Amino acid sequence: MPVVGMAGGGQLARMTQQAAIALGVSLRVLAATPNDAAAKVVSGVRVGDDRSLDDLLAFGQGCDVVTFDHEHVPGAHIRKLESTGVPCRPGPAALAHAQDKLVMRERLSGMGVPCPAYAPVPRAEPLKTLEDFAADHGLPLVVKAVRGGYDGKGVWVLDALDEAAGDMIRDLLSKDVDLMVEEHVAFTRELAALVARSPYGQGAAYPIVETVQEGGICTEVIAPAPGLPKDVAAEAQRLALTIAGELGVVGLLAVELFETDRGLIVNELAMRPHNSGHWTIEGARTSQFEQHLRAVLDLPLGSTEPTAAYTVMANVLGGDDPDVYARYIHVMAHDPAVKVHMYAKESRPGRKIGHVTALGDDLDDVRERARHAAAYLRWGTRMKEREGRR
Amino acid sequence: MPVVGMAGGGQLARMTQQAAIALGVSLRVLAATPNDAAAKVVSGVRVGDDRSLDDLLAFGQGCDVVTFDHEHVPGAHIRKLESTGVPCRPGPAALAHAQDKLVMRERLSGMGVPCPAYAPVPRAEPLKTLEDFAADHGLPLVVKAVRGGYDGKGVWVLDALDEAAGDMIRDLLSKDVDLMVEEHVAFTRELAALVARSPYGQGAAYPIVETVQEGGICTEVIAPAPGLPKDVAAEAQRLALTIAGELGVVGLLAVELFETDRGLIVNELAMRPHNSGHWTIEGARTSQFEQHLRAVLDLPLGSTEPTAAYTVMANVLGGDDPDVYARYIHVMAHDPAVKVHMYAKESRPGRKIGHVTALGDDLDDVRERARHAAAYLRWGTRMKEREGRR
Repeated sequence: MPVVGMAGGGQLARMTQQAAIALGVSLRVLAATPNDAAAKVVSGVRVGDDRSLDDLLAFGQGCDVVTFDHEHVPGAHIRKLESTGVPCRPGPAALAHAQDKLVMRERLSGMGVPCPAYAPVPRAEPLKTLEDFAADHGLPLVVKAVRGGYDGKGVWVLDALDEAAGDMIRDLLSKDVDLMVEEHVAFTRELAALVARSPYGQGAAYPIVETVQEGGICTEVIAPAPGLPKDVAAEAQRLALTIAGELGVVGLLAVELFETDRGLIVNELAMRPHNSGHWTIEGARTSQFEQHLRAVLDLPLGSTEPTAAYTVMANVLGGDDPDVYARYIHVMAHDPAVKVHMYAKESRPGRKIGHVTALGDDLDDVRERARHAAAYLRWGTRMKEREGRR
Repeated sequence: MPVVGMAGGGQLARMTQQAAIALGVSLRVLAATPNDAAAKVVSGVRVGDDRSLDDLLAFGQGCDVVTFDHEHVPGAHIRKLESTGVPCRPGPAALAHAQDKLVMRERLSGMGVPCPAYAPVPRAEPLKTLEDFAADHGLPLVVKAVRGGYDGKGVWVLDALDEAAGDMIRDLLSKDVDLMVEEHVAFTRELAALVARSPYGQGAAYPIVETVQEGGICTEVIAPAPGLPKDVAAEAQRLALTIAGELGVVGLLAVELFETDRGLIVNELAMRPHNSGHWTIEGARTSQFEQHLRAVLDLPLGSTEPTAAYTVMANVLGGDDPDVYARYIHVMAHDPAVKVHMYAKESRPGRKIGHVTALGDDLDDVRERARHAAAYLRWGTRMKEREGRR
């Protein structure tokens, strides 16, 4: 049976292990510490730095294919690993578009994919660029780190180009953070398209979902996106499959989209299992984690058929009291059908430490079940008090 | 988060790891070799002999609860482990009924549970006992090893009490195999009832399934058992829940049943995840593996609601060519919705090395899909030739 190596030991690698167990495939992970979410549940753990060439090359030996649970492995290192005969999927050329937002915008715009207006922020006279951009596209502006952001980190919404904004921009640039600016898109809601593509060229698209964000962090995913017109859903799937094909993605591609009055606009790309696809563990015939493994192993892709009318995933964020397990009793007794997924990560306030999934025919009921379970796991009996305060 | 220790490193422990990952619970296994099915996918592996008291005691240290993926850990060792303060679930008193078929028959008969007629086979004049038993119950007779049998091993159907039968019985007794005899039950089909019970006393019953056996090995499980009258299904669930309660089972209890003209008759008991429950991974809201963990952790039990009208599980047995992975391409391309579960065990002809699951509304179609996938994984393109020969 083949050996799949995954660089990164987070919850995505952790959940990939569940799929690897079913397929009989060996999963190895390169984790920063033995306490990483995936390191705790995989027998083939190599502790190391996945940004270090030496560690990556050592990890790749004995793997039939290497894939990634995040975007942070340098492309040059991946090319070097490939040169030793270990296929990396997605490959470095495709992955560049998930690692570098400017590369992504340039490529997608060149393909005619609708994107927000954008511009690089130069080190010389950055504020001049922002002012010109604001003159064309209005305020607020969205400033993004070109590389390395996630979960709202690396994204700053500027309501004014005042002194504080100027200080922040100069401070970031002085720390060698490359920046770009984008127009603030007036969207009605956020959607995500998840597709898989195999080296053979087979593609598979999941139903389009709605993602609900709070403070830049996804809190809830509704599958399928309620009330989304069929033609818009088909267009979103077509966009994602086209991007996957044009960029030569192998594995999963998640495309975060804005639904707007002027149509769909692409926000971000990820080339790995994605938070917006956790609902597929119970809600689709093939989970995104199994699908990613099938794709990187060049196996035929699995059915993306939903298993229920509605599936809702709610992220569990860390609360004040880290003893989440003590709160299982209420959650499981209250709703014997809700599915709990915890990542065995240290609980810190606001950190994604797990998720819950509910499914059924009645969307309001399903949402309420998922929200209740996630909020209770975070706050316990102080949930209502907290909810009231928001 | 609690640590659950499982004695035994087979496929049941392997699939329990999938559920442990979701619950955020740490699973440790005591495996005979680092190549055991579960040892390959768990970070907390202790290699040792689960029939050795020293290895069991050492394994138990640091576990919050210990459970079992088979029946072979001696009760005295479990009692000793419990005396060190590590709860064992199920406990030794309950487990005795899954370890010793004579203890089980005596207890169930005493409870008024319908069982086949049975008798111990004494070391002195064993054939006299068999002849007397045959005079009362007719031929064939079923001789069973009191302890240690599985998958048809330890069960002998005697059509005649001739010289060969006598030699076999004497040979077994000379090897210190304790024997018992049972009437050969004329059943219409075999069923299985799977229930869970927690220390708190909560019980949960899965739908009753039909199990199809060939040569003493279960090859197929159909959930729910087609055409089973509601009152018979309810009676089977009631029987299993009653046995679980009376015996003080904690965890899963699988009750293998004969459906006969004179009603349901109990065949065997198992107190662990069971082959007849593998369909629950996709076919029920809570898999048997998650349910077993919830029960031994004294968490509220999960919903046993089926996720489809019919779910069929077919075991994959080893064929002549051990390269099962090469046959994934056909199976997955032929049926993108069939779910493949391989145990990463060395393939030997006739050995259970995996299972496949299909589900849907049309039973004939679902059975055909599961059978095709299992047969192809076993035989490849020589499947039809083999099928014809049977």
